[in-house]
Amino acid sequence: MFYHVKDLQFNARVSKPDPRFARVMLEAFGGANGELKSAMQYFVQAFSCHNPYPDKYDMLMDIATEEFGHLEIVGATIQMLLGSVNGKMKDAVETTPLSCMMKGKEAKEYLIHQAYTNPQFLVVAPGSPTLTDSNGNPWCATYISANADLSVDLRSNMAGEARAKIGYENLIQLTDDPLVKDTLMFLMTREVTHYQQFEAALETIKPNFPPGAMQTSPKYSNLHFKLSKGNEACGPWNKGKSTQLGEEWINIKDPLGEVRRTDGLTEREPEGTPRTEKSMREKDEQLSAEHSNEVLSATPEKNMQWCEYCNEEEEEK
Amino acid sequence: MFYHVKDLQFNARVSKPDPRFARVMLEAFGGANGELKSAMQYFVQAFSCHNPYPDKYDMLMDIATEEFGHLEIVGATIQMLLGSVNGKMKDAVETTPLSCMMKGKEAKEYLIHQAYTNPQFLVVAPGSPTLTDSNGNPWCATYISANADLSVDLRSNMAGEARAKIGYENLIQLTDDPLVKDTLMFLMTREVTHYQQFEAALETIKPNFPPGAMQTSPKYSNLHFKLSKGNEACGPWNKGKSTQLGEEWINIKDPLGEVRRTDGLTEREPEGTPRTEKSMREKDEQLSAEHSNEVLSATPEKNMQWCEYCNEEEEEK
Amino acid sequence: MFYHVKDLQFNARVSKPDPRFARVMLEAFGGANGELKSAMQYFVQAFSCHNPYPDKYDMLMDIATEEFGHLEIVGATIQMLLGSVNGKMKDAVETTPLSCMMKGKEAKEYLIHQAYTNPQFLVVAPGSPTLTDSNGNPWCATYISANADLSVDLRSNMAGEARAKIGYENLIQLTDDPLVKDTLMFLMTREVTHYQQFEAALETIKPNFPPGAMQTSPKYSNLHFKLSKGNEACGPWNKGKSTQLGEEWINIKDPLGEVRRTDGLTEREPEGTPRTEKSMREKDEQLSAEHSNEVLSATPEKNMQWCEYCNEEEEEK
Amino acid sequence: MFYHVKDLQFNARVSKPDPRFARVMLEAFGGANGELKSAMQYFVQAFSCHNPYPDKYDMLMDIATEEFGHLEIVGATIQMLLGSVNGKMKDAVETTPLSCMMKGKEAKEYLIHQAYTNPQFLVVAPGSPTLTDSNGNPWCATYISANADLSVDLRSNMAGEARAKIGYENLIQLTDDPLVKDTLMFLMTREVTHYQQFEAALETIKPNFPPGAMQTSPKYSNLHFKLSKGNEACGPWNKGKSTQLGEEWINIKDPLGEVRRTDGLTEREPEGTPRTEKSMREKDEQLSAEHSNEVLSATPEKNMQWCEYCNEEEEEK
Amino acid sequence: MFYHVKDLQFNARVSKPDPRFARVMLEAFGGANGELKSAMQYFVQAFSCHNPYPDKYDMLMDIATEEFGHLEIVGATIQMLLGSVNGKMKDAVETTPLSCMMKGKEAKEYLIHQAYTNPQFLVVAPGSPTLTDSNGNPWCATYISANADLSVDLRSNMAGEARAKIGYENLIQLTDDPLVKDTLMFLMTREVTHYQQFEAALETIKPNFPPGAMQTSPKYSNLHFKLSKGNEACGPWNKGKSTQLGEEWINIKDPLGEVRRTDGLTEREPEGTPRTEKSMREKDEQLSAEHSNEVLSATPEKNMQWCEYCNEEEEEK
Amino acid sequence: MFYHVKDLQFNARVSKPDPRFARVMLEAFGGANGELKSAMQYFVQAFSCHNPYPDKYDMLMDIATEEFGHLEIVGATIQMLLGSVNGKMKDAVETTPLSCMMKGKEAKEYLIHQAYTNPQFLVVAPGSPTLTDSNGNPWCATYISANADLSVDLRSNMAGEARAKIGYENLIQLTDDPLVKDTLMFLMTREVTHYQQFEAALETIKPNFPPGAMQTSPKYSNLHFKLSKGNEACGPWNKGKSTQLGEEWINIKDPLGEVRRTDGLTEREPEGTPRTEKSMREKDEQLSAEHSNEVLSATPEKNMQWCEYCNEEEEEK
Repeated sequence: MFYHVKDLQFNARVSKPDPRFARVMLEAFGGANGELKSAMQYFVQAFSCHNPYPDKYDMLMDIATEEFGHLEIVGATIQMLLGSVNGKMKDAVETTPLSCMMKGKEAKEYLIHQAYTNPQFLVVAPGSPTLTDSNGNPWCATYISANADLSVDLRSNMAGEARAKIGYENLIQLTDDPLVKDTLMFLMTREVTHYQQFEAALETIKPNFPPGAMQTSPKYSNLHFKLSKGNEACGPWNKGKSTQLGEEWINIKDPLGEVRRTDGLTEREPEGTPRTEKSMREKDEQLSAEHSNEVLSATPEKNMQWCEYCNEEEEEK
Repeated sequence: MFYHVKDLQFNARVSKPDPRFARVMLEAFGGANGELKSAMQYFVQAFSCHNPYPDKYDMLMDIATEEFGHLEIVGATIQMLLGSVNGKMKDAVETTPLSCMMKGKEAKEYLIHQAYTNPQFLVVAPGSPTLTDSNGNPWCATYISANADLSVDLRSNMAGEARAKIGYENLIQLTDDPLVKDTLMFLMTREVTHYQQFEAALETIKPNFPPGAMQTSPKYSNLHFKLSKGNEACGPWNKGKSTQLGEEWINIKDPLGEVRRTDGLTEREPEGTPRTEKSMREKDEQLSAEHSNEVLSATPEKNMQWCEYCNEEEEEK
Repeated sequence: MFYHVKDLQFNARVSKPDPRFARVMLEAFGGANGELKSAMQYFVQAFSCHNPYPDKYDMLMDIATEEFGHLEIVGATIQMLLGSVNGKMKDAVETTPLSCMMKGKEAKEYLIHQAYTNPQFLVVAPGSPTLTDSNGNPWCATYISANADLSVDLRSNMAGEARAKIGYENLIQLTDDPLVKDTLMFLMTREVTHYQQFEAALETIKPNFPPGAMQTSPKYSNLHFKLSKGNEACGPWNKGKSTQLGEEWINIKDPLGEVRRTDGLTEREPEGTPRTEKSMREKDEQLSAEHSNEVLSATPEKNMQWCEYCNEEEEEK
Repeated sequence: MFYHVKDLQFNARVSKPDPRFARVMLEAFGGANGELKSAMQYFVQAFSCHNPYPDKYDMLMDIATEEFGHLEIVGATIQMLLGSVNGKMKDAVETTPLSCMMKGKEAKEYLIHQAYTNPQFLVVAPGSPTLTDSNGNPWCATYISANADLSVDLRSNMAGEARAKIGYENLIQLTDDPLVKDTLMFLMTREVTHYQQFEAALETIKPNFPPGAMQTSPKYSNLHFKLSKGNEACGPWNKGKSTQLGEEWINIKDPLGEVRRTDGLTEREPEGTPRTEKSMREKDEQLSAEHSNEVLSATPEKNMQWCEYCNEEEEEK
Repeated sequence: MFYHVKDLQFNARVSKPDPRFARVMLEAFGGANGELKSAMQYFVQAFSCHNPYPDKYDMLMDIATEEFGHLEIVGATIQMLLGSVNGKMKDAVETTPLSCMMKGKEAKEYLIHQAYTNPQFLVVAPGSPTLTDSNGNPWCATYISANADLSVDLRSNMAGEARAKIGYENLIQLTDDPLVKDTLMFLMTREVTHYQQFEAALETIKPNFPPGAMQTSPKYSNLHFKLSKGNEACGPWNKGKSTQLGEEWINIKDPLGEVRRTDGLTEREPEGTPRTEKSMREKDEQLSAEHSNEVLSATPEKNMQWCEYCNEEEEEK
Repeated sequence: MFYHVKDLQFNARVSKPDPRFARVMLEAFGGANGELKSAMQYFVQAFSCHNPYPDKYDMLMDIATEEFGHLEIVGATIQMLLGSVNGKMKDAVETTPLSCMMKGKEAKEYLIHQAYTNPQFLVVAPGSPTLTDSNGNPWCATYISANADLSVDLRSNMAGEARAKIGYENLIQLTDDPLVKDTLMFLMTREVTHYQQFEAALETIKPNFPPGAMQTSPKYSNLHFKLSKGNEACGPWNKGKSTQLGEEWINIKDPLGEVRRTDGLTEREPEGTPRTEKSMREKDEQLSAEHSNEVLSATPEKNMQWCEYCNEEEEEK
């Protein structure tokens, strides 16, 4: 169950209206890396953690809930940036005294011009945020990543926070309003905070690589295929040892020859790695049993109930 | 700012897993008339009410917040209906003792068969709700209606609640689990409650018809064009007086002749209505001034701040 | 079967080209509240009415058909607003005499500038309407609402007409062309006309609340949960009697305490309402039988044929 | 302006309900190659023809109007294929006598099972067509092709009709109902009819190749790059003369060497073609002037009106 | 397997940055008729040709592979047109010397202004192409046409190439940069080349009309329904003989009367065509057997393998 | 420029057709975590690296090119899993000897039943992969993440590879065909290989945290807000030091009180961190200059050319 309090988590303020920047800020409201995306991603991920991993459930819901609050901050800022658009559009008659107060037709023209960058600020929901990105694309659930496996989901969250962070970094450069900059700096900072929280959570899960339970085949694990010709660059991604499994990189400089010689790689043998098909299978079995047990032992077979209600009220404040 | 408490608003329970019904219930999670749609619709509508109509803001945020809680109830129910899918998919090895505990390969086949109706329950996010409708379409912000005008938004909300209500009515017929039926009955009831709340709010706005500020032209207001030939039905929609403006319905039985005789209706005169172009314009001016004033007088021209922070804490519990 | 006549229902005219406004008007062509949405919504809803409710079928098809004509009016207006864009883009050579007639490069620059607000007016379908909204989002069937239940569909139609009306109200304020304003006023007026027609049709269905056949539970029907903290507003939506069922509003000021005390509301008893679980079930049974009978008695079990062809031709003109 | 008559163009009949095939037939209703796609494509294309090419306008609107009628035929067939689903879902009470008439719970189970392949037939719009394809994807305007150039649009229409034709060919194989097969055969035939009509219309436009006004560069026009290695196939697409321009195909067997030798092709000279850069430019100028003139001379500069209303009524029947 | 070489197929160059044109060029990158659409369309179509039609497979993969290279050319051009946007956005501090080098705030304002036409060039992926069209719509697989039948697919490809061609024709008119014009001319030319290649391939398939295997019904094949009233135009599409089947066009001037007289056309007899229902069925059987045999004889029933690996390496360069 | 060779990178084989698993495998073809997503993501990201970071460009293009090859492997597998569907659908006549060879109507029924789980395998592109996910959603560019900043993009790639890996892990459990399992194991392994390559590349960029150039505010960086009530969990994400910045976690247990006391956090002072606003600004300036310089110095101001063509051919093999 959710509660709402009318105070914002951060004191969102705006020096003066700026409909043009309002359009750009939509990216943080209904955009692919915006706050709704973060909030919904963690919220959806939380369901599969509820029983087996209550500490992760707690963390995910904490941060999801904070992101809903950030969505509110962004929406409030956009609403303020749009200034009097809503009020003026409610004056449906062109030649009223109000329109004169606006300093006549020029003022109206200016208003229209400003907002024309996103006509929906005038025609669809005058002077109010719409749940779209800065180009008017409606928010879409394909933005969220949730795979019901924490070693995958937490990595997606880290990447998502990185993407949200750079989004705010870009936004900060596009406004001169110091009050808006303050709010953006707060929001940008929080993304980095959450990044570190997800990273810390991932580190409590061991082993967490490769993600999931299944080991990879030692036959193909440390091969690098040179498929992009021209000046070939060398780096730790195709020379030395791989970052997590510590296997020696093997460069396949002639991929076509290699696949023809090995019947499409099927006859290749592991090389440069201590791992074998047997060690791989043993680990598969061990991790499968462990992971599956963790979840199954926390999943009742029938008569399931999501929460127990205790009549104590001390937690409620 | 939002808070989350771990107790659900309603005691969501499930007698036994039913992945097939879980798929159908996605309609209420990420579907076009589902809970996320309601929650986001009221949340987005609230921004333009914040300053000028704080009582409506309060109502919209109250109900939006309740709908987020309903989304949680639906998600929890789907998670429970999917039973042990997540746990079993974590057992990545086919022939382990665990799999035997499941009564062998048949059990696995059965599980797969059940869930194949939505393969994403197995492949994308095993055993966990996805933010889609029952056919797998990702949730999309085009589902929400928000036009920054309460006389329009509240009518959309009433229609939306009606659509959500019939959705639950349909769902109730498709499950035999009495515990799930209880939850669905609770959710269905709440949609009807909210319908009445939005209706009551609309009645406090006078006049609220036509929606917005502009009056309609008396020249075309009470015409009914017979464009669909065959047996013609009569009803209060083309005979007698119109419901809100009380104008006499005039049937245009030969639309083509009529538009040719009247230069495309431009030379038609009002008929069957006391309204005139003059009375229309006067009302336009009056309502424009009123509506615009309400909003503008509540919108600061600069140095805007969304909320004032008071250091009193009595409201907080 | 449909027919088309080349005369428009309204004499659509344009004083001079205005590509910028053409972009904005796309909202009424391929937008979420545009004419195609209305036309397709009523058309799709009509199918389930064809047999059991031929009078409603007639009304829905009449209005759907009118809306297709409105779509044509809007498209024609956009085509005229785009003026010579199509013709000029067909001049694929930059330095021809034609281009000089346009007063040289400045004229071309101006043209480009005007239309750049929607590049697709130049690159995809030069000088012609595209089936998108003003931000270029392609029209999508998620815009339409059709639930195969008239007490729901007619309410959606009323809401949709309200949204379409405010759209035209907003558009009227964004053009200075009196001829275009005339057309928009005609279209706006018709939305309000249709609103009243759908309302009248809904009133012929009794009872129509709650929509559908199922009654709601008296246990949860009249509760208002205070989930949004801060200054609490009172209104007829949480005080006094509910609009349709006439139940007394009961405010749950401490939702968390309440759900804990009542095992997640399941142990709550009805309060402030004369309705009981028994009276609810009786009404369910009565309405189920009635509604179902209406439809089933009009649905042949086999050898179905959509229409009977009579060789009389008097209806045809 | 459109008219609707209640008679269908073809006598759509159904032997007995078949919800499973109803789902598949959605492909022709709201699918990417369905009837709505065809109808809207021709309708949108017609706008840019209205003034300069009234005969093509007439043809496009004729066929568009027929396709709206086909959409109605498909929808009616789906509605009949869904049989009593709507009526039975209106019986919201499980244990009524009606349900017994259905031969008890098994009948209901069977019904649910049939329709579970598309849950939206039960939950969203019970027993009625939805504007989606057979997988539930909502219809989307990206399906339509309209580029405001007849030599392009007519080719798209031919391709579209070919795609629609094969769709019906596939559908015919998936039903055993001879009445439904009759309807599908009618619809399939009409697609092929329209194909030929569009082809005939294209042939009246000369020259129509390359589409549009601009000629292509003789430097790159007849080169075939061998980029896909392995057994190389020869055919009239890389050997002999090209179909329309009659240029000799030149095979570039070593694309990388070629682009390096020619500074990325920029230093290549025309070969195997009589066309030159000069002849190309001359034709550009001639066609630009012609095409542009055709359209501009039919486009008033101001005071535009879409149609003239004549008070004669002989055409109306 | 694909290879990439760092050299572009055409020497893409840009005289100076032009972020505004970069936005428009997105149409060719991630737009409905852009290069990714072509590449993916041919790539997907190729799968069903692999076994039965290896020559067509070769052609489709050749052209698909070239289109991937064109996508790269377009992306490279957009990247260059965006000039220093990426570099400048990386300067996250407003008042650095770098910013002075840009000639102060005015330069920044100008940059912002240029790019505001597509804010995502600044906020989402500063200074880099996004996989969207010019209005910001993300690329979508609904753009591609693939029906697993060459007589349909090749026609779709011809239409698609025509649409891509006109897109480049339009783009060429919107830039003054001669280097960019060169690249666009190259790309435009190639679309016309491919058009002719697909046409040549279609001509090797006989018969190819109607597309697919099924013949159309002679009863409805040559009827033209006059459904669009007003001045009726005559042309080879409703007079004379049809283009491919050579049947005489029959005009149904009173469609409603006709369908009523013929029980919804079902009682109509073939007219103006030598084809009969019997000849139609015979051809159906013949072509069904042929087409089906072609594919089935090339499809192994089990133990399928996509390619044979030969250890010869001569083809590899 | 791309090349294609007909040999697959891995020897994709299928024991016998399995249309049901073909549907599920679509997730890896056109799904949100599928191979096209990976290929296009790295391809799009590469553009902004081309000049300033040629080694990363090389790596991204190498892996993108490999992923295109994986897309081909997945498509080939789906094509083989669909077996003879294409060939049989080409037999448009029901009662031919061919159909008897299939062992009569039952065989056809079985085929239809199998494929009905995705009707588009029969109706749209019989027996061939479609560019959709397993629920039929068309592939969409919103799946890809590209932000023109390597410290963000590489993290997104790591998360994406993790998601792709778990997808294959899930798929492997849903088939019993050992040949298909081999292919899936190869593809799964490669995702983990790429994960490590991206991780290695990220480690060569220093500092890479926070991503981008801007430092975060020390005022809000290490706060954890307890917004989700109930049993509170402790972990390294809200206790101890943060993972990357090494700041002490500070728990805000009463968020509402805190924001009220600090005027919406604006009056809060940094705590538990050595970082100050001054140190933050200094680092901002240093990194801004560095990052911006790297890119700008590699970006010509005008006369840009994407690649230099050298007439040496040694690299080409």
